[in-house]
Amino acid sequence: MIGSSILRGAISRKLSNKIYVFEKNIKYHNQIKRINKKIILLKKLDKKIEHIDLVVISTPMSEYKKIIFKLNKNLGENSLITDVGSTRGNVAKLIKENLSKNLNWIMSHPISGSEASGPMYGSKDLFKNKWCIIIKSKKNNLLKNKLIKFWKKLGSNVLFMQEKEHDKIFSVTSHLPHLIAYNLIKTAQDFQKLNRTNVIKYSAGGLRDFSRIAASNEIMWRDIFFNNRKNMSHIIDLFMKNLQNFKTDINKKRNSQLLQKLKKSKLARRQILFLKQDVSKPDFGRKN
Amino acid sequence: MIGSSILRGAISRKLSNKIYVFEKNIKYHNQIKRINKKIILLKKLDKKIEHIDLVVISTPMSEYKKIIFKLNKNLGENSLITDVGSTRGNVAKLIKENLSKNLNWIMSHPISGSEASGPMYGSKDLFKNKWCIIIKSKKNNLLKNKLIKFWKKLGSNVLFMQEKEHDKIFSVTSHLPHLIAYNLIKTAQDFQKLNRTNVIKYSAGGLRDFSRIAASNEIMWRDIFFNNRKNMSHIIDLFMKNLQNFKTDINKKRNSQLLQKLKKSKLARRQILFLKQDVSKPDFGRKN
Repeated sequence: MIGSSILRGAISRKLSNKIYVFEKNIKYHNQIKRINKKIILLKKLDKKIEHIDLVVISTPMSEYKKIIFKLNKNLGENSLITDVGSTRGNVAKLIKENLSKNLNWIMSHPISGSEASGPMYGSKDLFKNKWCIIIKSKKNNLLKNKLIKFWKKLGSNVLFMQEKEHDKIFSVTSHLPHLIAYNLIKTAQDFQKLNRTNVIKYSAGGLRDFSRIAASNEIMWRDIFFNNRKNMSHIIDLFMKNLQNFKTDINKKRNSQLLQKLKKSKLARRQILFLKQDVSKPDFGRKN
Repeated sequence: MIGSSILRGAISRKLSNKIYVFEKNIKYHNQIKRINKKIILLKKLDKKIEHIDLVVISTPMSEYKKIIFKLNKNLGENSLITDVGSTRGNVAKLIKENLSKNLNWIMSHPISGSEASGPMYGSKDLFKNKWCIIIKSKKNNLLKNKLIKFWKKLGSNVLFMQEKEHDKIFSVTSHLPHLIAYNLIKTAQDFQKLNRTNVIKYSAGGLRDFSRIAASNEIMWRDIFFNNRKNMSHIIDLFMKNLQNFKTDINKKRNSQLLQKLKKSKLARRQILFLKQDVSKPDFGRKN
């Protein structure tokens, strides 16, 4: 979905003369061809990729090692490699240990996506007005500027971070919310089983929002959770401590304490809307 | 917001000859008048309400006791009272202990809403194709049918439940998701403070969905959490047990176990979409 959005965005904005796609899953080939006739599907990552000047890797991170070996063998020294993975420390290590010293990789992380997977989804404007984090790099300015320009042309607001800072921040704003959504759905499913009653049916009262996030690609999210496990562990602990406190507030009917906490979270929503990180219409403006 | 949606729905479908509104918050009076010229604003809950044939209470549940005393004093025996509270056991008790035996109250719970509060929000179709739970009652069929007809005319699909069953089910599908959303936002705010870094800014990766739910009315949700504290306590415990297991899966890199769990939650989403409890477009179809 992310790869398809990059394709759609790059084609509609005429960012490349030629666009090559390598997709190992054959069932997606027709969907990719349908995006644009110009797209050239590669059968292998072989010498044909030698002169490609920008390689964008858009796969689960558990595929990277295999891809790096192909790039080492076949890619030229003037190429720039980037990727769109959601954790960066592990990939920094992977590159350091495995990528040929002659090759150039600067990591990206565009902060946009949805629960949908596959090339039929995605849109040319997925990155428009969204943050794209570029990981700080010692590569030359020519390469760095090329990558900045690429994301800016796709509509992103570019920001720079160290990989450690990145992984810490996104453990809070993205990885924990996804884990919590998965956990909430699991809890509802367990409750259903234990009580032999259909609860999913009544999900319009709140649960449905979480079910959307928990329908995200499981391979991608397994990789993220495993790769960012130290930060995840810390933020899960903070989350559990806070939940334990909420439970005590509720059981002991601590009125002012609970009210204050419930009220304060409105500030976060206000800030998110002010920063245009979400639509301001109630219920995301969804109509159903 | 719920009250305003009932007003809008009832007026647009011509369900009443006269519509009286009592709203204690003066700042809302103009917003209510603007909904429709026909609305008659009451200054007090006094003898003027005697002949109203359907009373719909749409306030936080912590207001009910005061309202019951007014109804006991002023409402006629032929009236039907209902309300839209999200927990039912506590209200059943409140009615039993406080409502005049000559008055008739059958509880409702329409399963729809949003994070918005106040009469300027809401819509005439808020209840359309949504469940409305009516709590089983020993009142006569004339009264029961009147209430069923009312909600059906507003577009709801009516279902019947015992108050205990209701409170258990909605602790899972509504109350826990709201508490979790509040808790996740609190955790992000705490992290921000501890690390002196702005994380809310990067909320498009998942957190923003939770911030919407956590912007719900704090009085209403305090009342719900307090009133349903026993069911909440059980479901929080199950949630924490599951989260602890997820943490262990991640730390120990239990691959197949984690993958299986992440995959299974897609089933819930599929069921929710099949039952038309949410929009099927990725990202709720929001455009931003």
